[in-house]
Parts: sequence; C-alpha cells; structure tokens
Amino acid sequence: MSDMQNDATAQTNFGRSEQKRHTILQSAEELFLTRGFNGTSMDEVAVHAGVSKQTVYNQFANKASLFVEIVQSMTAQAAKRVQAEMREPETLAQVATELSGHAERSLTIVMTPKLLRLRRLVIAEADRFPELGRALYDGGPGRAIADLAVNIQRWADRGLLSISDAMVAATQFNWLVMGEPVNQAMFRADFVLSKAERVRHIQQAVRVFIAAYECKTKRATMNRKIKTGQLRKRKFTYA
Amino acid sequence: MSDMQNDATAQTNFGRSEQKRHTILQSAEELFLTRGFNGTSMDEVAVHAGVSKQTVYNQFANKASLFVEIVQSMTAQAAKRVQAEMREPETLAQVATELSGHAERSLTIVMTPKLLRLRRLVIAEADRFPELGRALYDGGPGRAIADLAVNIQRWADRGLLSISDAMVAATQFNWLVMGEPVNQAMFRADFVLSKAERVRHIQQAVRVFIAAYECKTKRATMNRKIKTGQLRKRKFTYA
Repeated sequence: MSDMQNDATAQTNFGRSEQKRHTILQSAEELFLTRGFNGTSMDEVAVHAGVSKQTVYNQFANKASLFVEIVQSMTAQAAKRVQAEMREPETLAQVATELSGHAERSLTIVMTPKLLRLRRLVIAEADRFPELGRALYDGGPGRAIADLAVNIQRWADRGLLSISDAMVAATQFNWLVMGEPVNQAMFRADFVLSKAERVRHIQQAVRVFIAAYECKTKRATMNRKIKTGQLRKRKFTYA
Repeated sequence: MSDMQNDATAQTNFGRSEQKRHTILQSAEELFLTRGFNGTSMDEVAVHAGVSKQTVYNQFANKASLFVEIVQSMTAQAAKRVQAEMREPETLAQVATELSGHAERSLTIVMTPKLLRLRRLVIAEADRFPELGRALYDGGPGRAIADLAVNIQRWADRGLLSISDAMVAATQFNWLVMGEPVNQAMFRADFVLSKAERVRHIQQAVRVFIAAYECKTKRATMNRKIKTGQLRKRKFTYA
C-alpha cells in the first residue's frame, strides 16, 4: 500500500473506532441512567451498543472509567450551555442582569431530569468509586463556580463589585441559587420548580448577592464628592 | 390476676416490646449505614438484633418503613442539638453571633460521617422510595430552615433585621452555610473541613446574610434623626 492508502486506512480505522466509542458511551449512558450503576454490566453495555465485550474493554478499562467519561461529557456539555451567553456589564444593574441570566441557565440545566439522575447515581457511588464523585464535582459545581469567579473577579477589577475573594463570592452565589432546588430534587424525585418560582428564587439570590458585594466605598466616595461639590449630582449615574 | 398484676404485666410487655423495637432500630441503623439499603435484608436485621424475623415484621411493615424511622430518629436528634443553644439577641451584632453559633452547630452535625452516609443512602434510594427522601428532607433541611425562619421572623419583628419573607431568608442562610461543604462531602467521601476553614466559611456566610438583611431603613432613619438633631449621635448605638 502507498503512504496515502495507509493514511486513508488509518483514518477510516480511527473513524470507526471513534464511532464505536461514541455508540458505547451512548448505550452506557442510557443504561446507567435507567438501571443504575450497579444494575448495569459491561456485558449489557456491549449488547445494547451492538459490539463485542472485548471492544468495550478495548475502549474502557472498567465500568467506573466508562461512567467517569459519561459524567465528564454530560457536565462539559452543561457547562458550555451555561457559559455561552455571558455579556460584559457596564453598571451594577447590568451585573445583576448577567447574574440572573447565568443563574437561570445554570438552574434550568442542572434541574433537567437526566442531570438530576446522574447526580443521584454519582452520590450513591461516590464512596466506593471516588473518581466518579471527583468527575462530577470538578465538571459540575467545581467548574461552574470557577468560571463564575473569573467573571466576578473581572467585574470587581472594573469597580463594579467589591470583592475580597472571588471564589468565595462565586461559591456563595452558586449555592444561593442551587442549594434549595437541587437538594429538594435530590430528596424528592417528583420535585418541580415552576418558571414563576424559579424567577422569584433567582431574583432573591441576586438581591442578596448584590447587597453583600456592591461597591459601598465607591458609592460612599461618590456621595462625599457630590456633597463637597467635586461631583455634580446629575452626573452620578451608579445604576 | 388482679388489675394491678394485669397492669404490671402489660407494662412489662410494653417495656419488652419497646426494648426490642429499640434493638431492631439500632441493628438496622448499623447495617444500613455499613452495607447500604440494598445490601441489607430484614433477615439480617433480625439476626443482628437477636430476634425472630416475625418480631421485626411485627414492628415494621417493610424495610423502607424501618429505614424511614431511622431517618426520622437520626434527623430529630440532630435538630435537637442545633436548636438547643439559641439565645435572644438585642443588637445586630448579637444576631450575627447567634447565626454563627447556629451555623457552627448545624454544620458540625450535618458533616458527621454517619449523617453524611445517611444522606448519601437516602439520595440513592429517593426515586424508588419517595417516603425515605421525604423523611430526610422534612427532618433535615426542611426542619432546620423552618426552625431558623421562626427565629429570623422574631428578630425582624423586633426591628433587628429587615425581612420580607423569613422562610426565604432562612433558606438562603441555610445554603450559604451548607451548600458547598455538604455537596463537596457528597461527591468526595474523603472531604474534610478543618476547624479554621469552617470558622472562615461561616463568617463569610453571616457577613453576606447581614449585609442583605440589616435594617437599612432603620439605620437611615436614625442617621437622618442624628443629622436633624432629633437624636444625639452618642446615643445611637446600632451595633
């Protein structure tokens, strides 16, 4: 065979192998989410994916590492959808709007039945399979908080918020939003948050966060300047 | 037999029955927490408790109702320990102290390995056994939040906080404190919060809560009165 033919064959093999991997992951995801981690065997994954057991083991060392990859893929997709729509705020009111949008997207995604089921499965197995718990924490709340902290730090650097530790502030906002609905959902499989409840819940979380982290010194400084005539009141637009 | 003898016999029987119930609950708790809900059978509970299987079924209709009673008993004990030490604050600073103490007790109790294991077990089974999830939510976060809301409402009524919905405020405080450590612990069985981290974490939660709910109008009114001479500054002690 020529080099070109070799390349083409290698590419086809790689493509087939990737396709098989994708099929195995999809089958495993479906089985884990409906039958649980214990209730699913590698044999069943192979049958469901229409491949041999050996093919499954060629791609994944064991059931836990297969599940870890599913957790990573599901959380990565979720994170992408949350981060996509962030804009750069110019005022405190716009910070509140960005936070609301971020919370709305995060909560909607985290509360989908599929991700709640994944969360429940992983919590159930986290002591026996620490790598599962780590994958979900790192790809889920861990990443969400770290991403938000980057934004919060930038808003603080631009004088929109008064923040001493952006990770702490992001963590607090995350749980102000997620704490109650996610935990309700963990304990009550039939828990549903209506759109109106979600909107109200997020408004309340944003209000608390802004009250705690608005730039009081900036406002105080500006107020003093207004008082001493260094700044005219109508020019002071701190939305 | 005389009536007195009858009474005594009944009492002894009742005492024996109560004693057996207690022994069964203790055995079941130990087995569930070490082997899981699925990994424990009613037979094993009977053997571990040294009673017949029939005796177990005389007391508990099925495994789920046995587990529900364990969940209720463990959460009730935990709630009692959290509520025990609340004092009545006179200033905002004292409100902060009470909240810190409450958070410290709650977090310490919720983070004990036994209660974390219970939480994980219940989450794992909550979709198949909704009564388990309900028992843990109602006896755990649900009760903790409702109890705290009663205190927050009273502090608001006494003009120490500015609260429009005490349940919302209590829920927010609960998850500012519990959200990150409890979720870390759910996903990482080896997660430990050091005493220093716990103290710092609680300080940050209390700071956010107080910033959001301190009586700004009261302070503003007092400041205005000070300015207009209706109140002398040194008399204004709003700690």
